[in-house]
Amino acid sequence: MVKSILPEFEPADDSHVDASAPIFVTEKDVREWVRLEHIMPVVKDAFIALGEGRSTIFPLSRGTGSDPSHFFGIKAGRDGASGFLGVKAGSYIPSNRLRGMQAHTSTTMLFDDETGAFVGVVEANYLNGIRTAAANGVATDLLARHDSTTLGIIGLGPQAECEVMAVCAVRPITRILASMRNPASNAAFAASISAQTGIDVEMTSAEEVVRSADILVTATPSRYPVLETEWVRPGTHISAMGADDVGKQELPVTLVARASLVVDLAQQAARIGEAQYVVSQSLTTIDQLEERSLGKLLASKDVGRRDRDEITIFDSSGLAIQDVAAAAAAVRLVRAGRYAAARSGR
Amino acid sequence: MVKSILPEFEPADDSHVDASAPIFVTEKDVREWVRLEHIMPVVKDAFIALGEGRSTIFPLSRGTGSDPSHFFGIKAGRDGASGFLGVKAGSYIPSNRLRGMQAHTSTTMLFDDETGAFVGVVEANYLNGIRTAAANGVATDLLARHDSTTLGIIGLGPQAECEVMAVCAVRPITRILASMRNPASNAAFAASISAQTGIDVEMTSAEEVVRSADILVTATPSRYPVLETEWVRPGTHISAMGADDVGKQELPVTLVARASLVVDLAQQAARIGEAQYVVSQSLTTIDQLEERSLGKLLASKDVGRRDRDEITIFDSSGLAIQDVAAAAAAVRLVRAGRYAAARSGR
Repeated sequence: MVKSILPEFEPADDSHVDASAPIFVTEKDVREWVRLEHIMPVVKDAFIALGEGRSTIFPLSRGTGSDPSHFFGIKAGRDGASGFLGVKAGSYIPSNRLRGMQAHTSTTMLFDDETGAFVGVVEANYLNGIRTAAANGVATDLLARHDSTTLGIIGLGPQAECEVMAVCAVRPITRILASMRNPASNAAFAASISAQTGIDVEMTSAEEVVRSADILVTATPSRYPVLETEWVRPGTHISAMGADDVGKQELPVTLVARASLVVDLAQQAARIGEAQYVVSQSLTTIDQLEERSLGKLLASKDVGRRDRDEITIFDSSGLAIQDVAAAAAAVRLVRAGRYAAARSGR
Repeated sequence: MVKSILPEFEPADDSHVDASAPIFVTEKDVREWVRLEHIMPVVKDAFIALGEGRSTIFPLSRGTGSDPSHFFGIKAGRDGASGFLGVKAGSYIPSNRLRGMQAHTSTTMLFDDETGAFVGVVEANYLNGIRTAAANGVATDLLARHDSTTLGIIGLGPQAECEVMAVCAVRPITRILASMRNPASNAAFAASISAQTGIDVEMTSAEEVVRSADILVTATPSRYPVLETEWVRPGTHISAMGADDVGKQELPVTLVARASLVVDLAQQAARIGEAQYVVSQSLTTIDQLEERSLGKLLASKDVGRRDRDEITIFDSSGLAIQDVAAAAAAVRLVRAGRYAAARSGR
C-alpha cells in the first residue's frame, strides 16, 4: 500500500515531439502531468551528481520589491545529472494571503549546458513543493530507521501534504500525527492524506507529535524552535524543511548540536539553513558539515544512519539543482503528455 | 534626417488584450515589434528611477557550465519606473560560433512588484543589444557636445550597428568611421548603416577612428586597451560598452583617470566595468563614482558635460533595470502587435 522504495523514473517517450523550440510549461501543465514519484528519483540523481562534483551551485541573489516585506530570491545552478542549467526566481509576498493569492511563487528557466540555448520556462509553484519534499524523501530514505512506522509533522497545509507523501514513499508508515499552525486547513489536509494513504491523521499538540514520531518533519516558516530537545526520542529522524533564510529556525540549537546533522549544501546551510546557529556558535564547521552533506553521503554509498539510537537531522535549505532537475523532468513529462493527448484526439 | 532628440515612447494600445495570463515573447516577436526608439525612453526612465532611489539592483550571480569556458551570468532587479522586477540569464558560449550559433544568449523573466506574479518570459538576444545601445544613447545625449557630427566606432558586427543607431538618434551625425575586428561582417554592417542613415561608413584604422571622432563608441570583448590616450582629442565623448566582467578592458587607465567618468552603477562598474582599474589603483573611490553615476546625473538634472574640452567617458557594465525596462516594454508592444495583427485578420 505504502511504497517502501523510491519508484523508478520512467523516461517519458518524447521521441516524436519537436524539442527544439523553447516550451512554456504552465502551472496547470505541471499539476496535470507531474507527480512526486517522477521527481524524487531525479532529485536523488541531482544530489549524487552534486556529491560527485559534477554540478555547480551559483551564488544566491536576493532582494525586495518596493515594499520591503516583498521578498525575492534567485537560485541558479547546473545539474550534472540532467545536463541542464537553470534559474529559479522565487517570491514571498505575505500580503497575498489577504487577496486570496498564495504567498510563495516560483518560476524556473532552463538552459542547455552545451549551447546556452533557452530550453523553456516552467511555472513552478506546485513543483517547488514537490522538489522540496523530494529531497526530504531522499534524505529520509538514507537516514530514517527502516522500521519507522510513525510519522509526525509540524507544519502548514499544502507543503505538509507533499512532505507526508514523500516520507510515505520511502518508509512503511502506518500512523500519522500532525500539529498544524492553521486549523482552517486541517480538515482538507487530513482528508487528502487519508484518500492517498488510507491513514487517518491524528491532530494533536506539537509535544505529542514529537514524542510519538519515528520520523518527524518540520515544515514551517518559524523563526524560533517549534519543539523542545527533551521531547525527541532516541533513534528519531527529523527532516527540518523550513529554514531557508537568515534568522529562520525550527529546532533548538542543543538538539542540532547533539544530533547527526546532514545538510543539503554546507556553505548554504551554514548561511540560511538550520545549521546557521551551530556554525555561528562554533559548535561545528563548514568543513564538518560538508563531510556529512546529503550528496557526499549518497555518492559514497554511506549507510547514513550509524546506529539505531542516534538522532538524525536533515537540514534542507533548498538547492538550485533540485529546481533544475524538477523543471527538466517537468519539461519531458509535459511534452510527452501533450503529445499523447494530441494523438488521442483530446 | 537624423533625429536629434529622444523620440517619445508611444504607449501601446493594449487595453483590449488579456494581460492576466503570462506571456511568452519569442525572439521573432521582439524582432517584429520592438525598436530602439521604443527602448531608449524606458531605459532613460529606468536610470532616473535608479538615481532617485526608487529601484533595486540585486547581487550578481555567475557561474559556468560543465565546460569552464561556458559562462552564465544572472542579473536581477526592480525597475521603479516600470514597476516590474526581472531576472535576466545571459550565457556566453564561445564555441557556439563554430556551430553557426550566436555566442551570447539572453532570456528575461518579469514579475509583478505588488504580487510577485509571473508576468512573462522574453527571449532577449536582440533585445539585449538594444537595451545596451539605449543606455549609450541616453548617456551620449547627456555627455556629448551638442555639435558632435563625427562618430567613430571600434567594435564587432551586430552590437556595433545598434550602438551607431543609438548615437545617431541623439546627435546630428553626418560622418561615421569604423574599425571592425571581423572584416567578414564589414560589408553587411556598412550596408545596413547606410540604408538606415544615408551615411557611407569609412572603414579605417583604430587610430584614425579615434583621432577623427567627436563621439567614440567601443563595443568589444577586449581584455586590453583598444586605443591610446594621446589619440583622443579634447572634447571627445567616449561610450565604453564592452567591459562587463573582471579583467575586461577597452580604455587605457591613464585616459580613464584623466577624463570625466560616468558609470551606470558605482558598485558594479568598480567590480566588472572599465572603472575596475582606476578603483583598484586607488585613482578614484566608489563614492566618487556614485556621485557621477548616470542615474544620479539624470535625476538631478545635471548638465552632464561641464565644458567643451573635457573628455567624457560613459562606462557601461549593463544593469538589470535595463533588462527589466526593455522586457516590460517588449511585453506591451508584442501584446499590442499581436492584437492589431489578429484584428486585421493577418
